[in-house]
Amino acid sequence: VSQPAQGPRAPLGANERTTVHRRRERARHERAELYAILDDALIAHVSFVSGTSPVVLPMVHARDGDTLLLHGSSATRMLRELASGAELCAAVTLVDGLVLANAAVNHSMNYRSAVVYGRATEVTDPTAKTRALGLLIESLHPGRGAQLPPPGPAELRATLMLAVSLQEASVKVRTGPPNAGTKIEGLWTGVIPLSLQRGEPLAG
Amino acid sequence: VSQPAQGPRAPLGANERTTVHRRRERARHERAELYAILDDALIAHVSFVSGTSPVVLPMVHARDGDTLLLHGSSATRMLRELASGAELCAAVTLVDGLVLANAAVNHSMNYRSAVVYGRATEVTDPTAKTRALGLLIESLHPGRGAQLPPPGPAELRATLMLAVSLQEASVKVRTGPPNAGTKIEGLWTGVIPLSLQRGEPLAG
Repeated sequence: VSQPAQGPRAPLGANERTTVHRRRERARHERAELYAILDDALIAHVSFVSGTSPVVLPMVHARDGDTLLLHGSSATRMLRELASGAELCAAVTLVDGLVLANAAVNHSMNYRSAVVYGRATEVTDPTAKTRALGLLIESLHPGRGAQLPPPGPAELRATLMLAVSLQEASVKVRTGPPNAGTKIEGLWTGVIPLSLQRGEPLAG
Repeated sequence: VSQPAQGPRAPLGANERTTVHRRRERARHERAELYAILDDALIAHVSFVSGTSPVVLPMVHARDGDTLLLHGSSATRMLRELASGAELCAAVTLVDGLVLANAAVNHSMNYRSAVVYGRATEVTDPTAKTRALGLLIESLHPGRGAQLPPPGPAELRATLMLAVSLQEASVKVRTGPPNAGTKIEGLWTGVIPLSLQRGEPLAG
């Protein structure tokens, strides 16, 4: 009997919480699709339980192979809670278009959505942390990492770096035109594409 | 002794979890700033505790005065959990620019971030639900609501509508150039503005 595929090239596994129940046709199961979403997005929304209450915060992220990197200030209490191994859930969402349909209820968005479940470990080794910081800079602005001097010990201390293994994730994508509905005379239907665009750089 | 100001025009209150501890200069306390962020953004990331685990999902939102509206399919199990009054935390984040500094650690983003804490109540009254659905359509595409026929009973049943009072929220904003650091010869520093732009509509 053959074993299920393992490793970074294996399809995304599915369990109770990563199985898409609603709009199953939107589910994606290729690891490459998860990676592309994480790589295209600038921020992740990271949630965890504080006491018994949910908290969600935006964080800059990057990907290092099969690992999601998250970082912030070492002085942030909530990050320190995450670094101690608390469960987290991170959502990365790209909005690609407004879907304008014939009926209110068929209005939608085109989007690419990844939801990652796991626990963080803190990256403390200076070499690994320097590399992770470089990847985060690159994810902000490709090419920038090589232009900067390596961070010194004080910079490394100021940054708390978290790594989350990309073992448990759910990916959902909507593309294409609105669902067909009863045509309404004179009402435009279709998709208005949306994309995050860079403007004229402001030196400062 | 005068009472603290109340009502929709009062400043945002602060408690332990809504007080900004890090980068206090980025905290905002005007309710109008919270409203502007919610109104400018297309999606919220909504977190809650499922069992003992954190979950965060992207949802389309709108604002009705001092109330945050969230909606989704009535068939979504997680939405039904929220509708039963579970605690939630919703983050709405607008990314306005990449901040490229002299040192890796000073790289940042310009952003506007709102984090709302509360519990949802389900909107079940047909008139209120129709109004809420109209506001959600308007938040996707201003002017669209008036072009559509009112939703029928089946459409209303298919949608689960949640309302969260905007009583407990935290707002954080970064604007402007990078923090000054030791100048590096030949290294450009400044801000690259980012904005979500609409492309050419595709009829369909």
